Amino acid sequence: MTALPIRFVLVDTSHPGNIGAVARAMKNMGLAELVLVNPREFPHPEATARASGADDVLASARVVATLAEAISDCGLVLATTARMREQHFRVLEARQAAERIVSEARAGAGAVAVVFGTERFGLSNEHLLMAHALLRIPANPEYESLNIAMAAQLIAYEIRMAQHDVGSAVPPREVPLATPTQMEQFYTHLQQVMNEVDFRDRTASGANLIGRIRRLFNRAEVDANEVNILRGILTAVQKRRRKAGDEH
Amino acid sequence: MTALPIRFVLVDTSHPGNIGAVARAMKNMGLAELVLVNPREFPHPEATARASGADDVLASARVVATLAEAISDCGLVLATTARMREQHFRVLEARQAAERIVSEARAGAGAVAVVFGTERFGLSNEHLLMAHALLRIPANPEYESLNIAMAAQLIAYEIRMAQHDVGSAVPPREVPLATPTQMEQFYTHLQQVMNEVDFRDRTASGANLIGRIRRLFNRAEVDANEVNILRGILTAVQKRRRKAGDEH
Repeated sequence: MTALPIRFVLVDTSHPGNIGAVARAMKNMGLAELVLVNPREFPHPEATARASGADDVLASARVVATLAEAISDCGLVLATTARMREQHFRVLEARQAAERIVSEARAGAGAVAVVFGTERFGLSNEHLLMAHALLRIPANPEYESLNIAMAAQLIAYEIRMAQHDVGSAVPPREVPLATPTQMEQFYTHLQQVMNEVDFRDRTASGANLIGRIRRLFNRAEVDANEVNILRGILTAVQKRRRKAGDEH
Repeated sequence: MTALPIRFVLVDTSHPGNIGAVARAMKNMGLAELVLVNPREFPHPEATARASGADDVLASARVVATLAEAISDCGLVLATTARMREQHFRVLEARQAAERIVSEARAGAGAVAVVFGTERFGLSNEHLLMAHALLRIPANPEYESLNIAMAAQLIAYEIRMAQHDVGSAVPPREVPLATPTQMEQFYTHLQQVMNEVDFRDRTASGANLIGRIRRLFNRAEVDANEVNILRGILTAVQKRRRKAGDEH
């Protein structure tokens, strides 16, 4: 994935640890462009500690004096807010905002800026007036103020998700799924052993029972090795029983 | 919105600050049920400081000695992981997982547990084997290890988003999932029978083998009736063998 021109701007951040945590959150999601407006303390060992392996993002962070300077070359500018009270602003929820951010960044018309305010007071009205829209993270109305690094993490994540519309959770499969034929053979084998040990279920009738068992194993999505293990167990049960002379 | 029975379980957490940050992240998204398995230091001023206004979540957190204890009354159990290397597990990305968590929690069959490992090493294989599926947060493949509180924040956020989605594809669950305790009893019983019939797998060593079998059945998400059927089969195998006088 090529890095899109997406910039996180932190305004008047009080705690250097939060700056480090934002850097890590950004890198975790493949973002790298960090601008700090008038940070109270930076660089700072606490920032470095919380950045963990994202020292590169921290090292390349630009420090400027004003928000205007931080966004002067940007296209779309979004200001984060936890509040709903702002009137006459366009407000986007994080997920919609991320889609917008990604399309704008791909459109190649300047960097997109996402601006974060101070830990205690957020962004001033003056700062909000520099943004095209407000970005709001849906949260518990009774406790909606997120830690700044948490907010950065959520937005960076939504930006990543918006870039990967499809995305797959399926890890590469080393062993193929058992074929339908292998599964049929397994079910036949299992039914055989169940008959041999005279298994009766009290709750389910015969057809119903094997149906339930099939659904159970189908949900497991058994692979080719696993079906061999299962059949191996069935064979071991049969061998032991035959050795014991208990054949029917 | 009424609180759904969704439990975050932190295993062997090293830094008390992270526990506080998780409590805050949970409350920000309307979650309240926190269980700590063997935390290194708790309670701790650093936890309280990072919890900010979420002291109530922290105060009601339950501390237990083992993961088994933390999830003993749960239905669906998901284990978080940053790695893709685990084979034979079902893996859900955070967004799908959240949809699943919300439907299961709404189905009213026990709490849903989301389990988080240590800051440095995540969850052990033994712990992963107690989960029905792994939950993975999509991230930068070159730097994918998220801070534990960040991971908790993202998952809590996705759970909140999933609660607001209209409609659910998952039908209400008539029979609850087998509890972790029932599953342990089943695995013990299966191991016993495997020993009795002297089952040896050519490809997998002992620990490896039972691990594979556990992952297989965990993926199936066995319900309380099904675990009884499975144990009934095992009992039938043992009875037949005993009747045949083949006891060891």
